Amino acid sequence: MDLTTNESTPTSRELILLSARREIDQNGILGLRVASVAEGAHCSITQIYRFFGDRDGLLAQVLGDLYEESVTAAFVGYRQIIEAKQPLTIDDLVDALPLPSNSMLMKNQAIRSQILAAAVNNQKLHTRLEQITQRMWHMWVEAVEHTKPMMAPGQNVDWRVFTIMLSVQSLHYRTFLGDVGFTDDEYRQFLRDKFRLS
Amino acid sequence: MDLTTNESTPTSRELILLSARREIDQNGILGLRVASVAEGAHCSITQIYRFFGDRDGLLAQVLGDLYEESVTAAFVGYRQIIEAKQPLTIDDLVDALPLPSNSMLMKNQAIRSQILAAAVNNQKLHTRLEQITQRMWHMWVEAVEHTKPMMAPGQNVDWRVFTIMLSVQSLHYRTFLGDVGFTDDEYRQFLRDKFRLS
Repeated sequence: MDLTTNESTPTSRELILLSARREIDQNGILGLRVASVAEGAHCSITQIYRFFGDRDGLLAQVLGDLYEESVTAAFVGYRQIIEAKQPLTIDDLVDALPLPSNSMLMKNQAIRSQILAAAVNNQKLHTRLEQITQRMWHMWVEAVEHTKPMMAPGQNVDWRVFTIMLSVQSLHYRTFLGDVGFTDDEYRQFLRDKFRLS
Repeated sequence: MDLTTNESTPTSRELILLSARREIDQNGILGLRVASVAEGAHCSITQIYRFFGDRDGLLAQVLGDLYEESVTAAFVGYRQIIEAKQPLTIDDLVDALPLPSNSMLMKNQAIRSQILAAAVNNQKLHTRLEQITQRMWHMWVEAVEHTKPMMAPGQNVDWRVFTIMLSVQSLHYRTFLGDVGFTDDEYRQFLRDKFRLS
């Protein structure tokens, strides 16, 4: 990006969103203060409200963006691994999924829990999450249709593992299980067995 | 409970916890203000800090209690349905699980997301959730051992559906899928198929 041209200079709106991101990185999602965002963007609170209506509107934009990035990254990551290999086996599908020991994944799951929580009393954010989740659902359904002809002969897959099991899975709970919970290997073996259509 | 005897009069500590519960019921989990809790309990903020150390300590107690009630209720509900019937089939196991259309369940899932989110930056609450989740895990493992001999002949169950799939399931995500997501019947059929050991 060339920052010397006028076209690529961030607008006020973009500066506000960048400032909100920085605030979230530093102080977490739940306590986001509009005054701090304004300070970081060198603008007034009034200006933030002009763009986003109110604090809920700002959060709907910023947290909605974060949520979209998180679910999109999961989808793109999966697609990239799958596309690189043909024909596909069930083991390949399992290998394309992140494991509980992955610290980036777990950080991401914690962020998602916070976004879900913020949406409980923020109708604008709730609506945005609905739109994103439903669009992502359609993308997974399309990806499944795209992947079906790529499977090796005899690999009969239960695709509902994506659309019913993984779509409502929160590995954030795994954090609290510590050494008590299932291992990466047990998780992989379980997925392998559940993908296999009996 | 007999409120006329001295033994059953709530202590200051209990009054604080009751006030915090009322605050949460009225204003949600995330914005809980210690000053409001003090006002509702007719005590000083200093007194709250004497019992719970700080705001994090108060939240660790109140939200930890809520989390414990939520996961315990799920466990007890399951056990009661299972105990009432013998010998058990896989259909009985599935029938003992709540469905996405259950509004009480979904409200509970939203509360859990908020508790998980609050624990991200509250180490005391995080530690408490670890203790509760791990204790609950052991109870489920025991319940599985208890249920095994109760199964009808030929009903070969994949018990990992409890310990790997359902233990990290958040049906809160289902809320955002609206009409797009799986139905109760599809969910039940999926569970039936995944419980069946191939």
